[in-house]
Amino acid sequence: MKETLNIIKVGGGVVENPASLHMLLCQFAAMPGRKALVHGGGRSATAIAAKLGIESRMVGGRRITDQEMLRVVTMVYGGLVNKGIVAGLQAKGISAIGLTGADGDIIRSHIRPPKRVKMDDGSEQTVDFGFVGDVDCVDGQQLARLIEGGTVPVIAPLTHDGEGHILNTNADTIAGAVATALAAHYDVTLTFCFEKPGVLRDANDDNSVIPDINEDEFQQLKAQGIIAGGMIPKLENAFLSIHRGVTQVVITRADNIDGTRGTTIRA
Amino acid sequence: MKETLNIIKVGGGVVENPASLHMLLCQFAAMPGRKALVHGGGRSATAIAAKLGIESRMVGGRRITDQEMLRVVTMVYGGLVNKGIVAGLQAKGISAIGLTGADGDIIRSHIRPPKRVKMDDGSEQTVDFGFVGDVDCVDGQQLARLIEGGTVPVIAPLTHDGEGHILNTNADTIAGAVATALAAHYDVTLTFCFEKPGVLRDANDDNSVIPDINEDEFQQLKAQGIIAGGMIPKLENAFLSIHRGVTQVVITRADNIDGTRGTTIRA
Repeated sequence: MKETLNIIKVGGGVVENPASLHMLLCQFAAMPGRKALVHGGGRSATAIAAKLGIESRMVGGRRITDQEMLRVVTMVYGGLVNKGIVAGLQAKGISAIGLTGADGDIIRSHIRPPKRVKMDDGSEQTVDFGFVGDVDCVDGQQLARLIEGGTVPVIAPLTHDGEGHILNTNADTIAGAVATALAAHYDVTLTFCFEKPGVLRDANDDNSVIPDINEDEFQQLKAQGIIAGGMIPKLENAFLSIHRGVTQVVITRADNIDGTRGTTIRA
Repeated sequence: MKETLNIIKVGGGVVENPASLHMLLCQFAAMPGRKALVHGGGRSATAIAAKLGIESRMVGGRRITDQEMLRVVTMVYGGLVNKGIVAGLQAKGISAIGLTGADGDIIRSHIRPPKRVKMDDGSEQTVDFGFVGDVDCVDGQQLARLIEGGTVPVIAPLTHDGEGHILNTNADTIAGAVATALAAHYDVTLTFCFEKPGVLRDANDDNSVIPDINEDEFQQLKAQGIIAGGMIPKLENAFLSIHRGVTQVVITRADNIDGTRGTTIRA
């Protein structure tokens, strides 16, 4: 039987607020067993870009990453946010090690080609996302080696193309790809944390959490417009992970990372 | 007999210029055997701080690091500069892994207490450097484990206090401390790269490199004013490393990292 590994993905909203970051670090540090963290940091990147006079352009919730914005996300995700989390975990006795996809060559990607994207107004446009990387492969063996060495990977949403370029990659995507690669080595539970307590039947009612969901139900709820917006790629990503060997996927709020509540994804 | 390990320290001037960075990465990648890189990044930090409206204050060549400046150096050293080097080395087939002192708990430090400092005008003042860390210990075993795992550490000039704070630490000091800690595991050669081809007998003549120097000679040349300014702490640091078990210390220019030229420090 494989050992259990908990992978927690937390968005920028959690790690950028000192109070919620503190709570996350306490809860994450207290989790027993093997674990890893994947984080975002978009709001900090937007804020620092603005201070530097660089405008943030988003399409369908994804950041357009030109050369200047790439420098910002490399600094903010790989430096400011990542090292803050690592130092915070070290203070709690967790031997965290901060990684981007370039470190130890753990996540390779290729630059996303210009792509037809559905805009908010329903129209379609071809969008060049710039220095955004679509994941090619994750070196699960290298990550497992670090984990077996007693360290806890803290992964920033940055990858590399193997040709010297850092690329900006969505944190949910990284979490899914890392969980999938590590499923060969561990019995992986992947928990996506966001601002809601789970997938909601009524977006305005936090008590309407759907306790578990399979793909048919997802398609129905999507068709009915009950699941919409940013929840759709999150769930698509979750189902992909389950289909590719991750044992359990949970969507919940960050103050709930023991995974006992929230929405569990069923195959 | 211990295996050889080459530790190269390069200043910000080298890693911040695309052409000199490219040459450094080529030469470093071509070096055979075990190796590690320690880098600076001060000029980028100063430039980005200025864009953010944060003034850089230096005393005796050392940066005063208030809360805002700490955020800048964490971003720039730990993110922008470090990940750029790591991605560049990966492109050359080197499995680099970027580290600050917080990652894997490799370098602990404590905040430097306010300190009497000789100012440029010869007067003395008590200076509070802010979030600057004086190194307490380096986990050579953890670093050696990473190196034995086939990775090449690329170390940013940041440490941590074990209480959740990243601290700004001089890159020469880190290089010396890391070399000393790894001397228990390897036969270490430490090469400090800067803009001159070595320690010069005449600051205006690049052909006046002193091929080797011991501590008595250093004291004499210092008393005569031939060795002055930023070269003094660099040499003090070099002698400390030699006295603490590093096999060889060389001071040279970055385009010369095979160590065949430059100034060799004798015990």
